Amino acid sequence: MSKILKKRMNKPGLSPGSLVHVGEQNVETVTITLIDYDAQKIVEKKGASLKECMISLNTPTLTWINVCGIHDSTTIETIGRHFGLHPLILEDIMNSEQQSKLDNYKDTIYIVARQLIYNNEKQCVEDEQVSIILGKNFIISFLESSNNVFNPIYNRLKNPKGRMRQRGSDYLCYALLDCLVDNYFLILEKVDDHLENLEDELFHRSNDDTLKKMHHAKRELVLLRKSVWPMREVISNFRRIESPLVQNATKLYIQDVYDHTIQAIDTIESFRDITSGMLDIYLSNLSQRMNEIMKVLTIVATIFVPLTFLASIYGMNFKHMPELEWEWGYYFTLGLMAIMVIGMLYFFKRKKWL
Amino acid sequence: MSKILKKRMNKPGLSPGSLVHVGEQNVETVTITLIDYDAQKIVEKKGASLKECMISLNTPTLTWINVCGIHDSTTIETIGRHFGLHPLILEDIMNSEQQSKLDNYKDTIYIVARQLIYNNEKQCVEDEQVSIILGKNFIISFLESSNNVFNPIYNRLKNPKGRMRQRGSDYLCYALLDCLVDNYFLILEKVDDHLENLEDELFHRSNDDTLKKMHHAKRELVLLRKSVWPMREVISNFRRIESPLVQNATKLYIQDVYDHTIQAIDTIESFRDITSGMLDIYLSNLSQRMNEIMKVLTIVATIFVPLTFLASIYGMNFKHMPELEWEWGYYFTLGLMAIMVIGMLYFFKRKKWL
Amino acid sequence: MSKILKKRMNKPGLSPGSLVHVGEQNVETVTITLIDYDAQKIVEKKGASLKECMISLNTPTLTWINVCGIHDSTTIETIGRHFGLHPLILEDIMNSEQQSKLDNYKDTIYIVARQLIYNNEKQCVEDEQVSIILGKNFIISFLESSNNVFNPIYNRLKNPKGRMRQRGSDYLCYALLDCLVDNYFLILEKVDDHLENLEDELFHRSNDDTLKKMHHAKRELVLLRKSVWPMREVISNFRRIESPLVQNATKLYIQDVYDHTIQAIDTIESFRDITSGMLDIYLSNLSQRMNEIMKVLTIVATIFVPLTFLASIYGMNFKHMPELEWEWGYYFTLGLMAIMVIGMLYFFKRKKWL
Amino acid sequence: MSKILKKRMNKPGLSPGSLVHVGEQNVETVTITLIDYDAQKIVEKKGASLKECMISLNTPTLTWINVCGIHDSTTIETIGRHFGLHPLILEDIMNSEQQSKLDNYKDTIYIVARQLIYNNEKQCVEDEQVSIILGKNFIISFLESSNNVFNPIYNRLKNPKGRMRQRGSDYLCYALLDCLVDNYFLILEKVDDHLENLEDELFHRSNDDTLKKMHHAKRELVLLRKSVWPMREVISNFRRIESPLVQNATKLYIQDVYDHTIQAIDTIESFRDITSGMLDIYLSNLSQRMNEIMKVLTIVATIFVPLTFLASIYGMNFKHMPELEWEWGYYFTLGLMAIMVIGMLYFFKRKKWL
Amino acid sequence: MSKILKKRMNKPGLSPGSLVHVGEQNVETVTITLIDYDAQKIVEKKGASLKECMISLNTPTLTWINVCGIHDSTTIETIGRHFGLHPLILEDIMNSEQQSKLDNYKDTIYIVARQLIYNNEKQCVEDEQVSIILGKNFIISFLESSNNVFNPIYNRLKNPKGRMRQRGSDYLCYALLDCLVDNYFLILEKVDDHLENLEDELFHRSNDDTLKKMHHAKRELVLLRKSVWPMREVISNFRRIESPLVQNATKLYIQDVYDHTIQAIDTIESFRDITSGMLDIYLSNLSQRMNEIMKVLTIVATIFVPLTFLASIYGMNFKHMPELEWEWGYYFTLGLMAIMVIGMLYFFKRKKWL
Repeated sequence: MSKILKKRMNKPGLSPGSLVHVGEQNVETVTITLIDYDAQKIVEKKGASLKECMISLNTPTLTWINVCGIHDSTTIETIGRHFGLHPLILEDIMNSEQQSKLDNYKDTIYIVARQLIYNNEKQCVEDEQVSIILGKNFIISFLESSNNVFNPIYNRLKNPKGRMRQRGSDYLCYALLDCLVDNYFLILEKVDDHLENLEDELFHRSNDDTLKKMHHAKRELVLLRKSVWPMREVISNFRRIESPLVQNATKLYIQDVYDHTIQAIDTIESFRDITSGMLDIYLSNLSQRMNEIMKVLTIVATIFVPLTFLASIYGMNFKHMPELEWEWGYYFTLGLMAIMVIGMLYFFKRKKWL
Repeated sequence: MSKILKKRMNKPGLSPGSLVHVGEQNVETVTITLIDYDAQKIVEKKGASLKECMISLNTPTLTWINVCGIHDSTTIETIGRHFGLHPLILEDIMNSEQQSKLDNYKDTIYIVARQLIYNNEKQCVEDEQVSIILGKNFIISFLESSNNVFNPIYNRLKNPKGRMRQRGSDYLCYALLDCLVDNYFLILEKVDDHLENLEDELFHRSNDDTLKKMHHAKRELVLLRKSVWPMREVISNFRRIESPLVQNATKLYIQDVYDHTIQAIDTIESFRDITSGMLDIYLSNLSQRMNEIMKVLTIVATIFVPLTFLASIYGMNFKHMPELEWEWGYYFTLGLMAIMVIGMLYFFKRKKWL
Repeated sequence: MSKILKKRMNKPGLSPGSLVHVGEQNVETVTITLIDYDAQKIVEKKGASLKECMISLNTPTLTWINVCGIHDSTTIETIGRHFGLHPLILEDIMNSEQQSKLDNYKDTIYIVARQLIYNNEKQCVEDEQVSIILGKNFIISFLESSNNVFNPIYNRLKNPKGRMRQRGSDYLCYALLDCLVDNYFLILEKVDDHLENLEDELFHRSNDDTLKKMHHAKRELVLLRKSVWPMREVISNFRRIESPLVQNATKLYIQDVYDHTIQAIDTIESFRDITSGMLDIYLSNLSQRMNEIMKVLTIVATIFVPLTFLASIYGMNFKHMPELEWEWGYYFTLGLMAIMVIGMLYFFKRKKWL
Repeated sequence: MSKILKKRMNKPGLSPGSLVHVGEQNVETVTITLIDYDAQKIVEKKGASLKECMISLNTPTLTWINVCGIHDSTTIETIGRHFGLHPLILEDIMNSEQQSKLDNYKDTIYIVARQLIYNNEKQCVEDEQVSIILGKNFIISFLESSNNVFNPIYNRLKNPKGRMRQRGSDYLCYALLDCLVDNYFLILEKVDDHLENLEDELFHRSNDDTLKKMHHAKRELVLLRKSVWPMREVISNFRRIESPLVQNATKLYIQDVYDHTIQAIDTIESFRDITSGMLDIYLSNLSQRMNEIMKVLTIVATIFVPLTFLASIYGMNFKHMPELEWEWGYYFTLGLMAIMVIGMLYFFKRKKWL
Repeated sequence: MSKILKKRMNKPGLSPGSLVHVGEQNVETVTITLIDYDAQKIVEKKGASLKECMISLNTPTLTWINVCGIHDSTTIETIGRHFGLHPLILEDIMNSEQQSKLDNYKDTIYIVARQLIYNNEKQCVEDEQVSIILGKNFIISFLESSNNVFNPIYNRLKNPKGRMRQRGSDYLCYALLDCLVDNYFLILEKVDDHLENLEDELFHRSNDDTLKKMHHAKRELVLLRKSVWPMREVISNFRRIESPLVQNATKLYIQDVYDHTIQAIDTIESFRDITSGMLDIYLSNLSQRMNEIMKVLTIVATIFVPLTFLASIYGMNFKHMPELEWEWGYYFTLGLMAIMVIGMLYFFKRKKWL
């Protein structure tokens, strides 16, 4: 079960812009991937140095610097100094607990988004922070770990006829966000499958573990909601931003990501509705099963307790019990018992307990 | 039970405007129905070719192209090229998971709506996507399957005196939306009947299946809500749109569809209120029945367990038990038992358990 | 139990403005009451013909036409033609499922409101549609049935010194709405009494029927809410309307109706709060009673089962059971049993079960 | 338990401004207290006549007329005529069911507020209506009963150095509202204490009455909310009003009352949260206690029923039962029983039932 | 358990600005810490007198006066007189029940915030009021007790190269608020740990105390929410304020605190979601355990009650019972019993009760 609040250091009162990493460290070393392209040519370099980044920044081509790993304050600080980033941006990049948001600085737009990752090991959804800095002819993106969420973008960039190669940094930024949001749906499908299995289990094979699973599903939806919901605001702001960095032609595309985000949020809300309904079903099932158990007990007790009483009557040792002397006393008693049983069964039948 | 999220392909990071069909394929082949009309004459052609469509588009008459089947990217692409549609529109048409929305492009208005269909086989409500493109003198509508939701419109168009024949493409577009929203009420009536039956079952013939049915009803309402709710926004936008494509006279009619949509949403909310109340009733019923079962058990046990004890006392084999020797010992014991039973019955009567 | 959704005909795709009656037919024939008045004189005619209405319309006096019965499309159409009403108004008048709304046409204001009626026979609240058309010197009101909701207005009009006789059609329209909203409180008082009875029953005489009654009360509140809530919007719009038909002096009065509507809505919400609390009480009561039943069972079983065991020990037929031979064995055993009973009773006392 | 809706007369359709008292009559006679003051001198007269009021109104000093009792339409009407009040104001004053509101008339501001009173007799909170009319150099306040909510104001006015003596009627009006809102906190504290007692009872001495008390607490919070919530709107409007009657310097003080009102509303919401949690606790407690009862029953039955069975085996009267003949058969059986008991106890221990 | 509403004195109707302390007195004496600094030098004096404060106020350096203890009206009044503070500010400072708010006076900005403190003794979260007055070249802060929430700020100020030493009073004010909000996360982490422990206990070691703990957690979240939620509004206002006291450069930093506040609120909401889910789990667990108890009872009773009945049959003393005479009667009966037991066990196996 992933925690709602990641551990942060004892930070209150630290100077703003103090570069302290908040969150777990997900990768060993920081890896920088540098992609430099225009309509004609593209250069990709994994494990680039900061120096190489600086050089390609000064060329007129578009530069995309993808940084995997945010725990090393020296690297972040160097990047900050070179690109002239506001100290608050640097602090936010390193605080992996940041909520999604968009800040419009003079020369750059800073976007914090969250990607969702399905952790196959722990069988749960986790979220990681993605920071994107959009400049005139560059994009810097920061990932917490070296997962491959942006791989499809790499591949599309290699296609020389792709629309991305023709357009500016704002379009690349849009493509990154679109990629993140499309990714949400992969996760949501996993959750959908999971919920359907749970529903099936609930109705047909409900056991002690089902309750735990439902609680985890609910908790996961709380986390999903917390991650995805603020994206709505971010992309809505991006779409309505007044900045020379974003062209109107691109805004149409951003509107499209916006629609997808709304769709993701709606789906999560529907999931929440369904999950909360499932617990009611579970409780009803428990009550129902209790009813069944009690019915069995009641039927058995109601039939045999009176019979035993009857038998114990004639087990008494009174000197004067005329029935005991009768020739047919025993058979008569057995017959009486049979009639009692039949009467009981009829009563239960009428009550629909059988 | 229809899934909340339809399966989509592994799409994250695909170029926007990539034509990939998302959703189930509902028809074998794509069928195009072409209707070309003005106030004087009307031509209808089922199974028209794209070429025929192009030709009639260039005439001054109003052209309505209804495309059934959205899985074939070649057809969609050809239409897109001929009508000069934005790549994002084409992508949205093929993604049948799209939420209802209205996009105002320069020359066209693109509307995504959802129609509700009652699947008689699976006994559940399903929703399909309807895309409508409103141009100056044409309407293109895309349906997922070849169902006949727009048949009433075909028939009304044939009436030469109908208002539709006199008015422009915006009025036809309104008529299509009105048709979809009117359709909602047919579905809502089915749901209403279903809920009433369920309520009746709940109070008079509640069984193990009732719970399942209630859960399905709840789930169906989640789906209905997800489908119908965004229509409010779409039609509200349509009504307030600033576009040369929509005349003011038509806006009055759109306001009318808007009122109906609100009415549909309100009805769904009322259904949700009622459904959530039904589960409470079900749980109460379970508890009540448990109470009854326990009462029977308690009455039987409370009466016979003490009696059996008394009988077993005189079943003991002690040498010296004076009562056993008494002439009337046996009858006296039976009398004592009778008194105990009467006492118990009085006690239960007073507790209102009988 | 009144249905949430009234039956409508198979209408999807019908031309807008098609005059089809939606809802139950509540009266046999359509009755028109014509009232024509100014500050000096007043003429009232029950069962007036449409022709008479037309004539008095052309006089400078104020004309109020109250139509009871909306199922006859010919009458509605004739009125529509004579007063130059928009086809959508006529359609809405006949669709008794319409939600409350206010449409501002050029020469007329069209208001749909809902009145609440307590059906003494079925012992439930029903709602009917009231349509009001406000013109320069006329008001036309349409009721579903011939109930007497507007009777107080008739009576007040007869008072020659009444404010209504001095003021225009907007004031009459306000008076009609005020009358409807005041009527809500009569219904709400009935509901309040009903809920109080239910609460009393819940705490003192709760039985199997109580649950059903609570469900009906809840359902009724859903209906009330659906009827009254939109009135807020209608009257708020009426109060802020920019139209030569409504004078500023009247708006102060409309504000007053608005306050009352808010008050009605607030009361309904409070009722909902209370009703939902009542079900919790009911469930608690069931649990409580179950506890009591189980206590009786447990006390009886816990006392007598061990005693019976003890008795059955000495009922065994072993040859060598020294106790059986003892002179005081029997009395000793009885004494042991008495001590066990006292011990149990003390245990139950300490547990506060007795 | 105080009713949500006070009884009103059969009023629908009455002319607006008809002076009909709605609500219970709380005092025998109407008492008017007249206070006339400026910075230099102050005159207070309890039981003043309307004539005296008129006279002091025409002096340049500030006049505060406090009317206790609103059931006498003649008095209200006379006041209305003398002060030139709008008929709707008079109607609202007499309708003690009015929701809090602020109406801005030309020369006067009319405020309806509600005061909360703790009825020591019935041990419940009640609310009464307070109407305040703010004019250029006068304030008229109407109370339902002769309680002393405004006494602190009387006392402060007597202090010749008090700020109130220096400022205008708007400041006095503010002081009255502040007094009402401060009063809310006294009531809320009572409720807080009550809830804390209830919580304590719930955890340590829960009994049959606890449920009823919780329901009453919940109902009382519904009433409190209905009374206090609209004050937010009233005071917010008062603070932003554009009227020559209210000076800017006073608005700062009104902002302060506003903050207190928000605080009161927040506290009520917190109370609601806590109360709704308490019912869950109660239900859990019931379940818990049921579990305990069942455990006792199960333990007793599980131990003694098998033992009794064993004993009854050797109570059978078969001719050929070799065990019965054994010398140590009896002791062997007793030993077997002891072993069974120990086994059971171990089983219960492991299940943590003991 | 901390109370929702702190005790206040019987205050209604007191003159506004009356200096009455509301809340508990948390420190013995009022301690004033004076810090006077500019970019070059810094002077810190604990236990400064008011006179010293006045002197340093008249120097051009920035003066921060931190007052610990708000119960002494003389001190507060003296400060108020010297700094020319509005009487309402003084009243609010002493009323420690104040909700967070921001008031924009002419020369000063007055901010009320709440700090959260974890009381290790009572093991619960408490909140205290922090008042901050921002003037041109001074800040006065008021704490309820002498806790060290602002210590990190003292330390940062001592660093001559810190950004704080270069900037004005608005930046110091931001730093104080940032410090408070960062502090929230420390508390939230404690709550997170606590909830996780509770969740663990719930699933593995649930006992009678768990319910109480959950209730306390819920109550604590109500308090947290009440404290933190209004901060959103306060900081949002601070960020958008139009005042010469706040520079635009600082507003960027305030935006950052705003984001953190939103994050804190979101986390609290997530906690509430999780907590409310936990109670459902608890109730389910109770039901589940009841089911298990009942299963044991039912299994034991269903097996042994019929067996006992059989044994008691042959314990009857009828003269003519042929089976008793049979050579193998006893063994036959034992065999029959064994078959019955096997049948029962099979039945329970099939029902999955074993």
